[in-house]
Amino acid sequence: EAIMTTDTHPKCVTENLSINGRPVTICGMAKGAGMIEPNMATMLCFLATDAAVAPPALQPCLSEAVARSFNRISVDGEMSTNDTVLLLANGRAGNRSASLGSAEHEAFASLLFPMMTELAAMIVRDGEGATKAVDIRIRGARSDRDANVLAYHLANSPLVKTSFYGRDPNWGRLMAALGSAGPWMHPQKIDIFYDRVCLVRNGIGQGKKKTDQAGKVLRKDAFTVTIDLHIGAGSAHVLTSDLTHDYVTLNASYPS
Amino acid sequence: EAIMTTDTHPKCVTENLSINGRPVTICGMAKGAGMIEPNMATMLCFLATDAAVAPPALQPCLSEAVARSFNRISVDGEMSTNDTVLLLANGRAGNRSASLGSAEHEAFASLLFPMMTELAAMIVRDGEGATKAVDIRIRGARSDRDANVLAYHLANSPLVKTSFYGRDPNWGRLMAALGSAGPWMHPQKIDIFYDRVCLVRNGIGQGKKKTDQAGKVLRKDAFTVTIDLHIGAGSAHVLTSDLTHDYVTLNASYPS
Repeated sequence: EAIMTTDTHPKCVTENLSINGRPVTICGMAKGAGMIEPNMATMLCFLATDAAVAPPALQPCLSEAVARSFNRISVDGEMSTNDTVLLLANGRAGNRSASLGSAEHEAFASLLFPMMTELAAMIVRDGEGATKAVDIRIRGARSDRDANVLAYHLANSPLVKTSFYGRDPNWGRLMAALGSAGPWMHPQKIDIFYDRVCLVRNGIGQGKKKTDQAGKVLRKDAFTVTIDLHIGAGSAHVLTSDLTHDYVTLNASYPS
Repeated sequence: EAIMTTDTHPKCVTENLSINGRPVTICGMAKGAGMIEPNMATMLCFLATDAAVAPPALQPCLSEAVARSFNRISVDGEMSTNDTVLLLANGRAGNRSASLGSAEHEAFASLLFPMMTELAAMIVRDGEGATKAVDIRIRGARSDRDANVLAYHLANSPLVKTSFYGRDPNWGRLMAALGSAGPWMHPQKIDIFYDRVCLVRNGIGQGKKKTDQAGKVLRKDAFTVTIDLHIGAGSAHVLTSDLTHDYVTLNASYPS
């Protein structure tokens, strides 16, 4: 029977490594496109491995990987009631069980993190109606917590998200969203980059040439917006999508 | 010279009253359609009266009226850097200056509040791309503060706002937004009404007939969504608009 979903394609990753000379496989699959701002609450991710990893060693690397991957994305700022990431390890690889803190555990975790980051990115790239995946990076904030608030505020701002859709290097909207988010900052210290193009330096727009260059970055399917507040060492990033006509179409015509 | 704005029509109100037997006029005009979640930060409102009201009496009634009107609306959750409400009183009416707490002051304030509420509502009804103005009322919350967080969370939820646009009595989206907002509640105690249609009672949907009746409410240009949490005496409301294709068109094609 057909399952109703707005996902447009399967999202799978597979990687191999060796633990104690035994070949080990980790594979993962995820589902989700809308109602995405996971806080482990319709987003699903299942990971499986044949590695032997003791449960006390498995949970911390899963939790940390979730914090770095699925809990760093937002399609629409909508947390779901049933976001799930599960990691199953059946030990069929026959390796000596990797215990917490061992070199083997570290090797396993080092592979798991980028896999989960890639699965999370697949969800954003397939976000409902999305035409772009934009990594919003805040640095130089007073604290990581401030940086996190700012990154999510920008990632969920309708005006910021429609500027991405419209390919509009509208740094004024970024500044306005920063200013209304709450955390303290010095507007005159803020630098803003679209990929490597510095559009704003010390709070001041860098003119038509840079705006044109930033406009070219905005035509890409994926790019980074980096904002340096230059007031501290706090940093955070959120991977987000744009707000498009298709997002509205998909969500205003849900069958009732 | 043309001023660029997405407002589609002027927003003005005028009322008359008598203070100490002298005819007094209050008039107000407002501007704004997008970037609207005022916290007195592109929304402008100018009010003028010929009444004599002492400054110490004028400011409190303006502040309270702002709290009840402009600070209770949201088009897109975007606070602007220059939201402004000004009230000018030149005393030309020749009444004895209304002092704080006097009966005259109370009469003046009683007229000012609904005028400002009406101006604020005009902004939401003319919200960028908006087809509806929806008053989201939370009651029975643990505190007014909780109720306020919930009302704004629903008012700014893309899935809730697109459900209004799609005329979809999707109470599951309301429940999901309530649950992800933060404040504590008992899902099984929640009642949800679209105008007077009770679609959810004690957390349970009331079936097809009520859904059809709620669907009719959603076809209106303006309606109320009332959510009773039944766990306390806290209440709050926010007047919001729907999220539409035209909102995206207006904001994705801003001239750069």
